[in-house]
Parts: sequence; C-alpha cells; structure tokens
Amino acid sequence: MSDRIITLTTDFGIKDPFVGSMKGVILEINPEAVIIDISHEINPFDLLEAAFLLSCFYAYFPAGTIHCIVVDPGVGSERRPIAAITDKYSFVAPDNGVLSYIFEKEQIVEVIYLTESKYFLNNISQTFHGRDIFAPVSAWLAKGINPRAIGPIIRDYIHLDLPKASASEDNKRILGEVIHIDIFGNLVTNIPRSLFEKGFKGGISGFKAIVGGVSIESQHLCNAYADLQKSSMGAIIGSQGYLEFFAARDSLANICGIRRGERVEVIFE
Amino acid sequence: MSDRIITLTTDFGIKDPFVGSMKGVILEINPEAVIIDISHEINPFDLLEAAFLLSCFYAYFPAGTIHCIVVDPGVGSERRPIAAITDKYSFVAPDNGVLSYIFEKEQIVEVIYLTESKYFLNNISQTFHGRDIFAPVSAWLAKGINPRAIGPIIRDYIHLDLPKASASEDNKRILGEVIHIDIFGNLVTNIPRSLFEKGFKGGISGFKAIVGGVSIESQHLCNAYADLQKSSMGAIIGSQGYLEFFAARDSLANICGIRRGERVEVIFE
Amino acid sequence: MSDRIITLTTDFGIKDPFVGSMKGVILEINPEAVIIDISHEINPFDLLEAAFLLSCFYAYFPAGTIHCIVVDPGVGSERRPIAAITDKYSFVAPDNGVLSYIFEKEQIVEVIYLTESKYFLNNISQTFHGRDIFAPVSAWLAKGINPRAIGPIIRDYIHLDLPKASASEDNKRILGEVIHIDIFGNLVTNIPRSLFEKGFKGGISGFKAIVGGVSIESQHLCNAYADLQKSSMGAIIGSQGYLEFFAARDSLANICGIRRGERVEVIFE
Repeated sequence: MSDRIITLTTDFGIKDPFVGSMKGVILEINPEAVIIDISHEINPFDLLEAAFLLSCFYAYFPAGTIHCIVVDPGVGSERRPIAAITDKYSFVAPDNGVLSYIFEKEQIVEVIYLTESKYFLNNISQTFHGRDIFAPVSAWLAKGINPRAIGPIIRDYIHLDLPKASASEDNKRILGEVIHIDIFGNLVTNIPRSLFEKGFKGGISGFKAIVGGVSIESQHLCNAYADLQKSSMGAIIGSQGYLEFFAARDSLANICGIRRGERVEVIFE
Repeated sequence: MSDRIITLTTDFGIKDPFVGSMKGVILEINPEAVIIDISHEINPFDLLEAAFLLSCFYAYFPAGTIHCIVVDPGVGSERRPIAAITDKYSFVAPDNGVLSYIFEKEQIVEVIYLTESKYFLNNISQTFHGRDIFAPVSAWLAKGINPRAIGPIIRDYIHLDLPKASASEDNKRILGEVIHIDIFGNLVTNIPRSLFEKGFKGGISGFKAIVGGVSIESQHLCNAYADLQKSSMGAIIGSQGYLEFFAARDSLANICGIRRGERVEVIFE
Repeated sequence: MSDRIITLTTDFGIKDPFVGSMKGVILEINPEAVIIDISHEINPFDLLEAAFLLSCFYAYFPAGTIHCIVVDPGVGSERRPIAAITDKYSFVAPDNGVLSYIFEKEQIVEVIYLTESKYFLNNISQTFHGRDIFAPVSAWLAKGINPRAIGPIIRDYIHLDLPKASASEDNKRILGEVIHIDIFGNLVTNIPRSLFEKGFKGGISGFKAIVGGVSIESQHLCNAYADLQKSSMGAIIGSQGYLEFFAARDSLANICGIRRGERVEVIFE
C-alpha cells in the first residue's frame, strides 16, 4: 500500500512548471501514486543542504516509500542517475552525493545505475532529468518494478565528505559547525547529543559555546525553546538530536548574522 | 471517507524538513490519510494570524476532516496539546489560543487534553510536537479513534481576546482594525457585512473610512475589484464577509504602508 | 481513474486561505478528487505568465486531468468563467486569455461558458470565484459530469496575442523575446528549436545573441548546463524546446538585470 508514496525534494522552487511536470509524469505512469511535497526550496545546486534535509525526514515515512531528490547541477553531463535501495526505502537521485547521509545512516542493499530508457520519458532533454528520468523511474518503482530491471548495480557512487564534529581526547572541547539554519533562525549544529553529553555535566559545570563572534555560556541545556527569558540565547538538543543554538522567540541567525558553515566551538568547564 | 482528510497549517515554512516529517508520521500511522497543505507560511509564532486564517478556510472542508494547526511558540513548556471536537470537524493544536475563532464560531462538543502517549511518537522531543504529538494524533483521529481515548475533557482551554469591531449607538460610526493583509495587498478588516450595513445606506449617502493616515470616501461599496478605475481605492465586502479596502490592480498595503492591526474608522454621512 | 486529478495553478500565494478554501470545496463535492498543486506563485494578475507556465506542464498529465487555473483580475466583473474541453483534458479558468497557449496547441473540442449555478457554491462572492465557481466546477467535472450541463458552448472566448519569434527571410536573423525567467535565472526565450535550427549550422558557423545589453557569442549550443566553464554564458535548448540563455551555475538574469519581455536578437554568421 505505502509503495504508492513518492516524496519530492528539489531546488526547483514553487513557481516554475518543473515540479508540476514531474507530478504529471508520475501520475501518467502510475495514477495510484501518492505524491508528497517535502521541499522545493533547497538552495539552487546546494547538495549538502539537500542531503542534510533529506536525512531529517526520510525515516518518518512508511516502509516502501520512494524518496525522489532532484538537486542536479550536473544534469545532462556524465553524472549518473541512480536509485539507492534499502530494506525500507528507495532513493532516486542524481549520483552527485546528495544521498551521502543516507549512505552513512542506512544499510544500503544496492545502488542501481539507471540506464534502462524504457523506464524514462520517450524524449530525454539534457536539462531536466527530474521530469525525464527521476520522476518516471520513481513512478515505476512505486508500481513495484524490480530496481534491477532499470540498470546495473554499481559500487563507485559518490559519497561526499560530510562535515563531522569532533571532541578533544578529554572530551573538554568539541569542534563542529552550523549545518542548517531553520526558518526560526535556530542554528542547527552537527554535534550529536551523544558527543555533547560526553563532556557535559549538566547543572554541575556549564559550557561555553562560540559560534561566529558570539559567545553563549550556560549551566544547562534548555528543555524547551520557551524556557528562555526574552532577549537571551540558549542551547538545546533539537528535534533531530543535534545541539542547536537559539534566541528567545527571535532569529539567532539574524541577530548574529551567522550563516551555515560557521565554525562552532564548545568548551566544558 | 472524508475522515481520511487531514489539513496542515503551520509556521514551519516550506524549506525545512518539519512539514515533511509530519507527513511521514501521518502516513506511517495511517497510509489512507489524504494530507492537504493549507499554509506553512504563517508568520513565526503568530497565533492571531493563524487563528484568523483557520477561520477562513476550515468550514469549506467536508465533515470528518481533521484540521491540524501547529503554531507553537510554547512547545515543550507546560502548554497542553489539545483536540477540539465539533459535530463536523476535529481541530488538533496546541492550547495557546490558536483555535479561538473556532471556539466562537462553532458549537464545541468537547475539548480533549491530549495525554495518552501511545498515540504519540515513541520518543517525544521538546522542540517539535508537530511531528511527535499533533501529526500522530491527527493520523489516529483520521483512523476513527475516539477522541476520549486520547485524554480527558477540559474546559479551561485558552480563548484569546479577539479584536472585535464596534459601532456607535446611532450606527453612524464603526471602529475596527485591519486583521489581515492578503497577497494582493488588500486590507481585510474585522467589520462584518452586517455591522457595516447597519449604518450604510448605499447610493443615498456615502461613507468615509480612515485607515492609518489614509482616507477613502465613497458613495457605494464596489461589487467587484475590477469596478475601480486605475489608481483609485475602494471598499468591498470580501470573500469572508468582512469589509475590505483595496486599490485598483495594486497593493493598497504597499501604497499606504499599512500593516495588520492598523485602526479602521468608518463614518457614515 | 485519472479523471479524479485536479491541478491547481493560481496567483493566490501559499499563505492566504484562498488555496485551502478551494481544496476544501473540491473535496466536499468530490472526496475522491486528487488535488495536485502546480503553482500558487504566479505574479498577481499576470495572465501571460500563467498562460506560459500552463503550456509547459499540462501535457504531462494523464488523460482525464482537470486543470484549474485561477489568475483572475476581472473577478466579479462581466468576464465569463469558462471550461475548455479537449480530447484529453478540461481547463477551467476565467475567460481572460489565460488559456491562450492551450487554444494554439490543442484541438479544442468545445469551450463552455459556465452558467449553471447549481454546479457553483450556494453563495457566490464577487471577489473569489476560485472558491465559488472554478473549484466546484472542477470537482464536478472530475466526477464525470458532462461539461454541456454547465452551460452553453461559446466561440468568442478571449485569445491573447502571444509574443511570437520571427526569422528574417534568409533565416540569418531571429527576433524574439524572453518569455520566462526560471528559478535558476535562466532566460527562456520564445524561439523554438525548429526556428533556431533553420539558421544555425552548428560547428561550422556560430551565432551571436543580443539580450538586453548583453552579447553572447558561440560556435555551438551547449548540450548541458554543466558544459560551461565557470563565469561564462551560453545557450541551450531548454526542457520546453525553446532557446534558453544561462550562466554557469549562476543566475544570468541577476548578473545582467534582465527581465521578462526583454527583446532577443540572434544573428547567424
């Protein structure tokens, strides 16, 4: 049943006819498909952003879901279209590293190089494989076709070097970075809860965090955004399990002019 | 049949993985659910805006629809998650007043304080109850579960003091405010048609409206936006039944720099 | 089966309750309808933009799809609501020219002037026919009602004069214009591949294009966006089959400050 679900994540925006065309192609092949918009507002060509956002939502979908991700600066070049298959999901995307978090988090059963053009549109443009390759392949997969029918298994798919946080040997210091800034202006870091908790003794001794030019000192992590008094800044473990900095009912990113990629240093006292 | 419909209204934007995660959670619990995006562009934390917009669209949906509204500045604090049940609909939201117009317009059968965690996700974050509580409860309600199974009935839910327009005793003067500015820059007021018509004798004597520093005089209400000559301003009863000010094929809000909350005075001659 | 599909294209934005109300109306009449968002970000009142974008996506949908397009500056005036019927699709829209590309590209079986108010909402506002007329008529058509039941056939529907590219007699020179700028800042022209190829001898002799103040010279068309070196500009046949100018991984529109409607001249050497 849930094999009918196809999620769409792109950098195509919501004005152009790109997403609409993909939806049409999917429904033409598979009228039973249930198309779920995730986001079409990925920064143009921003593979890391797409990769991270994908890592945040994919696992909430039921087994059988096909996740179609099209952020594709290399469209029409030699870069390959692929489908990565796990026990629960299929990921259809260009082979440009946009699935890198998936390759780290999931047991990959196989990665298929999509070559069998009978599962593509009849006329393939060199500028819009979202419509001509990724949408139709997703629709066919949602119909239950065997991925191996669409092309050979490959092992040399692209796996980007993802930014990782690291702790000093005594766990007194963590270096990471801001990997996402959400709509509320919260700074999501790449420091997972487990790494943070190695150094943090809540209540007993606090921590000091330096993000960009900004310093945030605290004795404790917040339990809720609403814990903070107005005009103050705090830290919390966000909904993805990463350390996050925020301002009380305000955008910390705007207040401090901080962007994604900014270095984060956490020091435990 | 229409019990499968779940509408989503949030301030999560359309880039972050928040909405996608909620959709996944819903479909995991209830693969038959039909998810309808209303808006994810509510101003962050803007309860009044969300409350008003909800009041505009909810009643067009078929009986059985579950309306899930997540504008939730108090997430993770003591504020309660609730479901308000009417004869036709269920409204799933934080107990922060975002349902206030519903409480005024609808006969509420009961309001449930959502406490039964078996209808939540297994691990509840303190930062994203949209995903962890409101989405799963909506999915369960769309499966037909009895709301009373999810928690106790409460009567002390939060009902915000909504801005109301009022007329002078002789109905010669109305005081109200701009409660919404739509995408076209039209100024939607909180003056309902019935209140306006108490004072207005169309054609016989006109009215003068003062909004911000701007004065609009007319002998009649427009019947259509297209009635106005270029570069002029007019008044009309909008699609929600409220008095509305607009400029001919232009944004009156931009022309006059008027924002939501601006005082509106209407004087009948 | 695919008669259940209704696509929505509007200038209503994604914040206001307009689109949500239309979805509710559709589902109330036809709970089996599958509603597909195309775009709600058409520039307010921009008929040409809506007309062009519609022409790009509609044909990818399965036979039976109902395309509902609401860009409607004349709402409430004398302009008529219509449904244009082809062998494959129904197009429900105001009679203001927004279907002009469809009238050129498709064999129109009949155009119906929508007059039969039993297929409308009970109370018709003068400001929001998207909700009151176009959504309900789309829902009824998706239920399989005969279009002729909704009103008389008309032949005097509005067909806008669409901007057309033209070549000199010797095919050495083409005059056209930028008809769309996409999210990546690519300049989509109205010069179809066939017209371009009449003058172009790829590899043998190149071409020179002048768009706004910008001049782009090349010996060849690019095969892919990724063909270009950084900081250069090129031309390609885009996914709709039109000549398109672009910058390597950048927005040519931003770089050159070019807007829709800009004149395009192509000269073959």
